[in-house]
Amino acid sequence: MVKKVQVLRLGHRIYRDIRTTTHCALTSRALGAEKITIIGETDYSIEDSVNKIVNNWGGKFKIRFAENIKNEINKIKKEKYCIVHLTMYGELLGKKIKEIRKKNKICIIVGAEKVPPLVYEKSDYNISIGNQPHSEIAALALTLHEVFEGKELNKKFPNNKIKIIPQKKGKKTKKRPLV
Amino acid sequence: MVKKVQVLRLGHRIYRDIRTTTHCALTSRALGAEKITIIGETDYSIEDSVNKIVNNWGGKFKIRFAENIKNEINKIKKEKYCIVHLTMYGELLGKKIKEIRKKNKICIIVGAEKVPPLVYEKSDYNISIGNQPHSEIAALALTLHEVFEGKELNKKFPNNKIKIIPQKKGKKTKKRPLV
Repeated sequence: MVKKVQVLRLGHRIYRDIRTTTHCALTSRALGAEKITIIGETDYSIEDSVNKIVNNWGGKFKIRFAENIKNEINKIKKEKYCIVHLTMYGELLGKKIKEIRKKNKICIIVGAEKVPPLVYEKSDYNISIGNQPHSEIAALALTLHEVFEGKELNKKFPNNKIKIIPQKKGKKTKKRPLV
Repeated sequence: MVKKVQVLRLGHRIYRDIRTTTHCALTSRALGAEKITIIGETDYSIEDSVNKIVNNWGGKFKIRFAENIKNEINKIKKEKYCIVHLTMYGELLGKKIKEIRKKNKICIIVGAEKVPPLVYEKSDYNISIGNQPHSEIAALALTLHEVFEGKELNKKFPNNKIKIIPQKKGKKTKKRPLV
Protein backbone atom coordinates (compact mmCIF):
# COMPACT_ATOMS: atom_id res chain seq x y z
CA MET A 1 0.00 0.00 0.00
CA VAL A 2 1.29 3.44 -0.85
CA LYS A 3 2.30 5.34 2.28
CA LYS A 4 4.28 8.25 0.97
CA VAL A 5 3.94 10.25 -2.23
CA GLN A 6 6.14 13.10 -3.36
CA VAL A 7 5.95 15.06 -6.59
CA LEU A 8 8.76 16.28 -8.82
CA ARG A 9 7.82 19.13 -11.15
CA LEU A 10 10.22 19.71 -14.04
CA GLY A 11 10.94 22.87 -15.97
CA HIS A 12 9.49 25.78 -14.03
CA ARG A 13 10.03 29.22 -15.54
CA ILE A 14 9.14 32.36 -13.59
CA TYR A 15 6.14 34.27 -15.05
CA ARG A 16 5.24 31.71 -17.73
CA ASP A 17 4.64 28.81 -15.34
CA ILE A 18 3.68 30.59 -12.14
CA ARG A 19 0.03 29.57 -12.22
CA THR A 20 0.42 26.04 -13.57
CA THR A 21 3.21 25.24 -11.10
CA THR A 22 1.12 26.65 -8.25
CA HIS A 23 -1.78 24.46 -9.41
CA CYS A 24 0.58 21.43 -9.39
CA ALA A 25 1.72 22.25 -5.86
CA LEU A 26 -1.78 22.79 -4.44
CA THR A 27 -3.17 19.71 -6.19
CA SER A 28 -0.30 17.66 -4.74
CA ARG A 29 -1.10 18.92 -1.25
CA ALA A 30 -4.90 18.61 -1.49
CA LEU A 31 -4.74 15.08 -2.90
CA GLY A 32 -2.39 13.55 -0.37
CA ALA A 33 1.23 14.12 -1.46
CA GLU A 34 3.60 15.23 1.24
CA LYS A 35 6.10 17.25 -0.76
CA ILE A 36 6.75 18.91 -4.10
CA THR A 37 10.21 19.59 -5.49
CA ILE A 38 10.38 22.03 -8.37
CA ILE A 39 13.26 21.89 -10.84
CA GLY A 40 13.76 25.21 -12.57
CA GLU A 41 14.02 28.86 -11.71
CA THR A 42 13.64 29.44 -7.96
CA ASP A 43 10.38 31.33 -7.52
CA TYR A 44 9.81 32.73 -4.04
CA SER A 45 6.30 33.91 -4.90
CA ILE A 46 5.14 30.30 -5.36
CA GLU A 47 6.94 29.16 -2.24
CA ASP A 48 5.26 31.97 -0.27
CA SER A 49 1.77 31.35 -1.57
CA VAL A 50 1.97 27.59 -0.96
CA ASN A 51 3.41 28.08 2.53
CA LYS A 52 0.62 30.54 3.37
CA ILE A 53 -1.94 27.96 2.36
CA VAL A 54 -0.26 25.29 4.50
CA ASN A 55 -0.17 27.73 7.41
CA ASN A 56 -3.88 28.57 7.12
CA TRP A 57 -5.36 25.30 5.92
CA GLY A 58 -3.16 22.84 7.86
CA GLY A 59 -1.14 19.73 7.19
CA LYS A 60 2.60 19.36 6.71
CA PHE A 61 3.05 19.81 2.97
CA LYS A 62 6.55 20.95 1.93
CA ILE A 63 7.71 22.84 -1.14
CA ARG A 64 11.32 23.20 -2.26
CA PHE A 65 13.32 24.11 -5.37
CA ALA A 66 16.26 22.19 -6.82
CA GLU A 67 18.48 22.76 -9.84
CA ASN A 68 19.73 19.49 -11.22
CA ILE A 69 17.31 16.81 -12.46
CA LYS A 70 19.94 14.06 -12.49
CA ASN A 71 21.03 14.64 -8.89
CA GLU A 72 17.43 14.82 -7.79
CA ILE A 73 16.48 11.55 -9.50
CA ASN A 74 19.52 9.81 -8.00
CA LYS A 75 18.52 11.04 -4.55
CA ILE A 76 14.93 9.83 -5.00
CA LYS A 77 16.17 6.41 -6.13
CA LYS A 78 18.49 6.14 -3.10
CA GLU A 79 15.51 6.90 -0.86
CA LYS A 80 13.74 3.95 -2.56
CA TYR A 81 10.87 5.83 -4.12
CA CYS A 82 9.29 4.14 -7.13
CA ILE A 83 9.38 6.74 -9.92
CA VAL A 84 6.18 7.22 -11.93
CA HIS A 85 6.70 9.68 -14.78
CA LEU A 86 3.49 11.03 -16.32
CA THR A 87 3.70 11.39 -20.09
CA MET A 88 1.14 11.16 -22.87
CA TYR A 89 3.49 8.67 -24.58
CA GLY A 90 3.51 6.16 -21.74
CA GLU A 91 1.58 3.01 -20.89
CA LEU A 92 -2.03 3.52 -19.83
CA LEU A 93 -2.54 4.14 -16.11
CA GLY A 94 -5.32 1.54 -15.98
CA LYS A 95 -2.89 -1.20 -16.99
CA LYS A 96 -0.33 -0.43 -14.30
CA ILE A 97 -2.24 1.05 -11.38
CA LYS A 98 -2.56 -2.23 -9.48
CA GLU A 99 1.22 -2.71 -9.54
CA ILE A 100 1.83 0.89 -8.56
CA ARG A 101 -0.56 0.69 -5.60
CA LYS A 102 1.62 -2.08 -4.11
CA LYS A 103 4.61 0.24 -3.75
CA ASN A 104 5.51 1.76 -0.43
CA LYS A 105 6.82 5.13 -1.63
CA ILE A 106 6.11 6.84 -4.94
CA CYS A 107 7.58 9.87 -6.64
CA ILE A 108 5.34 11.24 -9.42
CA ILE A 109 7.20 13.26 -12.05
CA VAL A 110 5.31 15.88 -14.08
CA GLY A 111 6.93 17.98 -16.78
CA ALA A 112 6.16 21.43 -18.12
CA GLU A 113 7.40 21.24 -21.71
CA LYS A 114 10.30 19.21 -23.05
CA VAL A 115 11.37 16.42 -20.72
CA PRO A 116 14.92 15.08 -21.16
CA PRO A 117 15.32 11.41 -22.25
CA LEU A 118 17.02 10.69 -18.90
CA VAL A 119 13.62 10.94 -17.18
CA TYR A 120 12.08 8.31 -19.47
CA GLU A 121 15.07 6.03 -18.87
CA LYS A 122 15.39 6.39 -15.11
CA SER A 123 11.67 6.14 -14.31
CA ASP A 124 10.23 2.84 -13.14
CA TYR A 125 7.01 3.63 -14.99
CA ASN A 126 6.21 5.99 -17.84
CA ILE A 127 2.46 6.38 -17.53
CA SER A 128 -0.14 8.16 -19.62
CA ILE A 129 -3.55 9.33 -18.45
CA GLY A 130 -5.15 8.71 -21.82
CA ASN A 131 -2.83 9.07 -24.83
CA GLN A 132 -4.16 12.54 -25.65
CA PRO A 133 -2.57 15.94 -25.12
CA HIS A 134 -4.09 17.63 -22.06
CA SER A 135 -2.74 18.92 -18.76
CA GLU A 136 -0.07 17.80 -16.33
CA ILE A 137 -2.27 19.15 -13.52
CA ALA A 138 -5.18 16.94 -14.60
CA ALA A 139 -2.82 13.96 -15.03
CA LEU A 140 -1.34 14.50 -11.57
CA ALA A 141 -4.80 14.76 -10.00
CA LEU A 142 -6.07 11.56 -11.61
CA THR A 143 -2.91 9.66 -10.69
CA LEU A 144 -3.10 10.69 -7.01
CA HIS A 145 -6.83 9.84 -7.02
CA GLU A 146 -6.15 6.37 -8.46
CA VAL A 147 -3.12 5.71 -6.24
CA PHE A 148 -5.10 6.52 -3.08
CA GLU A 149 -8.36 5.02 -4.46
CA GLY A 150 -10.41 8.12 -3.63
CA LYS A 151 -9.48 8.08 0.07
CA GLU A 152 -7.32 11.18 -0.40
CA LEU A 153 -10.48 13.28 -0.57
CA ASN A 154 -11.17 12.51 3.10
CA LYS A 155 -7.66 13.38 4.26
CA LYS A 156 -7.42 15.48 7.44
CA PHE A 157 -5.23 18.58 7.58
CA PRO A 158 -4.32 19.09 11.24
CA ASN A 159 -3.33 22.47 12.73
CA ASN A 160 -5.57 24.37 10.34
CA LYS A 161 -6.69 27.88 11.18
CA ILE A 162 -9.54 27.82 8.71
CA LYS A 163 -11.90 25.06 7.64
CA ILE A 164 -14.82 24.82 5.23
CA ILE A 165 -18.25 23.67 6.31
CA PRO A 166 -19.64 22.16 3.06
CA GLN A 167 -22.84 23.88 1.84
CA LYS A 168 -25.50 23.20 -0.78
CA LYS A 169 -25.43 26.88 -1.75
CA GLY A 170 -23.02 29.62 -0.74
CA LYS A 171 -19.88 29.63 1.41
CA LYS A 172 -19.30 28.85 5.06
CA THR A 173 -15.98 28.69 6.88
CA LYS A 174 -14.97 28.15 10.48
CA LYS A 175 -11.96 29.98 11.83
CA ARG A 176 -9.99 28.99 14.87
CA PRO A 177 -8.95 31.74 17.24
CA LEU A 178 -5.23 32.33 16.70
CA VAL A 179 -3.13 31.60 19.78
CA MET B 1 -26.36 7.42 -17.43
CA VAL B 2 -24.54 10.56 -18.49
CA LYS B 3 -24.48 10.91 -22.27
CA LYS B 4 -23.39 14.48 -22.82
CA VAL B 5 -21.07 16.70 -20.83
CA GLN B 6 -20.22 20.30 -21.57
CA VAL B 7 -17.99 22.63 -19.57
CA LEU B 8 -18.50 26.30 -18.75
CA ARG B 9 -15.34 28.17 -17.79
CA LEU B 10 -15.89 31.49 -16.02
CA GLY B 11 -13.69 34.56 -15.89
CA HIS B 12 -11.03 34.16 -18.56
CA ARG B 13 -8.57 37.06 -18.88
CA ILE B 14 -6.12 37.21 -21.79
CA TYR B 15 -2.47 36.71 -20.70
CA ARG B 16 -3.15 35.86 -17.06
CA ASP B 17 -5.36 32.85 -17.73
CA ILE B 18 -4.11 31.68 -21.12
CA ARG B 19 -2.44 28.54 -19.83
CA THR B 20 -4.96 27.54 -17.17
CA THR B 21 -7.90 28.05 -19.55
CA THR B 22 -6.09 26.02 -22.23
CA HIS B 23 -5.53 23.26 -19.65
CA CYS B 24 -9.27 23.36 -18.82
CA ALA B 25 -10.18 23.06 -22.50
CA LEU B 26 -7.77 20.19 -23.24
CA THR B 27 -8.72 18.33 -20.07
CA SER B 28 -12.39 18.67 -21.02
CA ARG B 29 -11.67 17.22 -24.46
CA ALA B 30 -9.35 14.41 -23.33
CA LEU B 31 -11.72 13.29 -20.57
CA GLY B 32 -14.90 13.05 -22.59
CA ALA B 33 -16.63 16.44 -22.65
CA GLU B 34 -17.95 17.57 -26.01
CA LYS B 35 -17.73 21.33 -25.66
CA ILE B 36 -16.27 24.16 -23.61
CA THR B 37 -17.76 27.64 -23.42
CA ILE B 38 -15.51 30.33 -22.02
CA ILE B 39 -16.98 33.43 -20.42
CA GLY B 40 -14.55 36.32 -20.47
CA GLU B 41 -12.24 38.07 -22.89
CA THR B 42 -12.38 36.44 -26.33
CA ASP B 43 -8.96 34.88 -26.88
CA TYR B 44 -8.30 33.67 -30.41
CA SER B 45 -4.94 32.14 -29.45
CA ILE B 46 -6.68 29.61 -27.20
CA GLU B 47 -9.36 28.90 -29.80
CA ASP B 48 -6.64 28.32 -32.41
CA SER B 49 -4.52 26.03 -30.30
CA VAL B 50 -7.49 23.92 -29.19
CA ASN B 51 -8.82 23.68 -32.76
CA LYS B 52 -5.38 22.60 -33.98
CA ILE B 53 -5.35 19.81 -31.44
CA VAL B 54 -8.83 18.67 -32.49
CA ASN B 55 -7.72 18.75 -36.12
CA ASN B 56 -4.62 16.62 -35.46
CA TRP B 57 -5.77 14.35 -32.67
CA GLY B 58 -9.38 13.78 -33.70
CA GLY B 59 -12.84 13.91 -32.19
CA LYS B 60 -15.47 16.61 -32.37
CA PHE B 61 -14.65 18.85 -29.42
CA LYS B 62 -15.92 22.42 -29.72
CA ILE B 63 -14.68 25.63 -28.13
CA ARG B 64 -16.55 28.93 -28.07
CA PHE B 65 -16.56 32.24 -26.18
CA ALA B 66 -19.58 33.97 -24.68
CA GLU B 67 -20.02 37.22 -22.76
CA ASN B 68 -22.90 37.01 -20.38
CA ILE B 69 -23.00 34.39 -17.62
CA LYS B 70 -26.71 34.84 -16.90
CA ASN B 71 -27.75 34.35 -20.53
CA GLU B 72 -25.48 31.34 -20.82
CA ILE B 73 -26.87 29.69 -17.69
CA ASN B 74 -30.45 30.30 -18.87
CA LYS B 75 -29.61 28.70 -22.20
CA ILE B 76 -28.04 25.66 -20.52
CA LYS B 77 -31.09 25.25 -18.30
CA LYS B 78 -33.42 25.45 -21.29
CA GLU B 79 -31.40 22.69 -22.97
CA LYS B 80 -32.00 20.62 -19.81
CA TYR B 81 -28.43 20.20 -18.70
CA CYS B 82 -27.99 19.49 -14.99
CA ILE B 83 -25.57 22.18 -13.72
CA VAL B 84 -22.71 21.00 -11.51
CA HIS B 85 -20.67 23.94 -10.22
CA LEU B 86 -17.28 23.01 -8.79
CA THR B 87 -16.37 25.03 -5.70
CA MET B 88 -14.26 24.27 -2.64
CA TYR B 89 -17.24 25.41 -0.53
CA GLY B 90 -19.67 22.84 -1.92
CA GLU B 91 -20.85 19.40 -0.87
CA LEU B 92 -18.33 16.58 -1.26
CA LEU B 93 -18.32 14.90 -4.68
CA GLY B 94 -18.39 11.45 -3.05
CA LYS B 95 -21.79 12.20 -1.46
CA LYS B 96 -23.47 13.28 -4.70
CA ILE B 97 -21.75 11.39 -7.51
CA LYS B 98 -24.32 8.56 -7.64
CA GLU B 99 -27.13 11.08 -8.15
CA ILE B 100 -25.14 13.01 -10.74
CA ARG B 101 -24.31 9.85 -12.73
CA LYS B 102 -28.07 9.31 -13.25
CA LYS B 103 -28.44 12.54 -15.23
CA ASN B 104 -28.62 12.55 -19.00
CA LYS B 105 -26.79 15.82 -19.71
CA ILE B 106 -24.39 17.66 -17.43
CA CYS B 107 -22.82 21.09 -17.57
CA ILE B 108 -19.78 21.41 -15.31
CA ILE B 109 -18.98 25.00 -14.27
CA VAL B 110 -15.43 25.91 -13.26
CA GLY B 111 -14.42 29.40 -12.17
CA ALA B 112 -11.12 31.25 -12.37
CA GLU B 113 -11.31 33.65 -9.42
CA LYS B 114 -14.42 35.26 -7.95
CA VAL B 115 -17.63 33.51 -8.97
CA PRO B 116 -20.85 35.58 -8.75
CA PRO B 117 -23.55 34.40 -6.25
CA LEU B 118 -25.88 33.77 -9.22
CA VAL B 119 -23.82 30.68 -10.12
CA TYR B 120 -24.24 29.17 -6.64
CA GLU B 121 -27.97 29.86 -6.77
CA LYS B 122 -28.71 28.62 -10.28
CA SER B 123 -26.60 25.45 -10.09
CA ASP B 124 -28.29 22.14 -9.38
CA TYR B 125 -25.21 21.03 -7.43
CA ASN B 126 -22.38 22.97 -5.81
CA ILE B 127 -19.70 20.33 -5.47
CA SER B 128 -16.27 20.32 -3.88
CA ILE B 129 -13.42 17.97 -4.72
CA GLY B 130 -12.10 17.95 -1.17
CA ASN B 131 -12.73 21.14 0.81
CA GLN B 132 -9.18 22.40 0.28
CA PRO B 133 -7.88 25.11 -2.01
CA HIS B 134 -6.31 23.56 -5.12
CA SER B 135 -6.95 23.77 -8.84
CA GLU B 136 -10.02 24.04 -11.03
CA ILE B 137 -8.19 21.92 -13.61
CA ALA B 138 -7.65 19.13 -11.08
CA ALA B 139 -11.25 19.44 -9.88
CA LEU B 140 -12.56 19.27 -13.45
CA ALA B 141 -10.42 16.20 -14.22
CA LEU B 142 -11.57 14.29 -11.14
CA THR B 143 -15.22 15.17 -11.76
CA LEU B 144 -15.11 13.95 -15.38
CA HIS B 145 -13.28 10.81 -14.23
CA GLU B 146 -15.93 10.08 -11.59
CA VAL B 147 -18.87 10.96 -13.86
CA PHE B 148 -17.63 8.55 -16.56
CA GLU B 149 -16.28 6.02 -14.02
CA GLY B 150 -12.88 5.82 -15.70
CA LYS B 151 -14.30 4.81 -19.08
CA GLU B 152 -13.38 8.24 -20.49
CA LEU B 153 -9.73 7.12 -20.63
CA ASN B 154 -10.61 4.60 -23.33
CA LYS B 155 -12.53 7.10 -25.46
CA LYS B 156 -11.83 6.99 -29.21
CA PHE B 157 -11.07 10.15 -31.17
CA PRO B 158 -12.04 9.47 -34.80
CA ASN B 159 -10.57 11.32 -37.78
CA ASN B 160 -7.21 11.76 -36.07
CA LYS B 161 -4.09 12.45 -38.11
CA ILE B 162 -1.76 11.43 -35.33
CA LYS B 163 -1.98 8.74 -32.70
CA ILE B 164 0.26 7.56 -29.87
CA ILE B 165 1.47 3.99 -29.58
CA PRO B 166 1.97 3.62 -25.80
CA GLN B 167 5.55 2.77 -24.81
CA LYS B 168 7.36 1.64 -21.67
CA LYS B 169 10.17 4.06 -22.47
CA GLY B 170 10.36 6.81 -25.06
CA LYS B 171 7.88 8.15 -27.60
CA LYS B 172 6.16 6.54 -30.55
CA THR B 173 3.49 8.04 -32.78
CA LYS B 174 1.69 6.90 -35.90
CA LYS B 175 0.75 9.46 -38.51
CA ARG B 176 -1.91 9.03 -41.14
CA PRO B 177 -1.08 10.18 -44.63
CA LEU B 178 -2.94 13.42 -45.23
CA VAL B 179 -5.45 13.21 -48.06
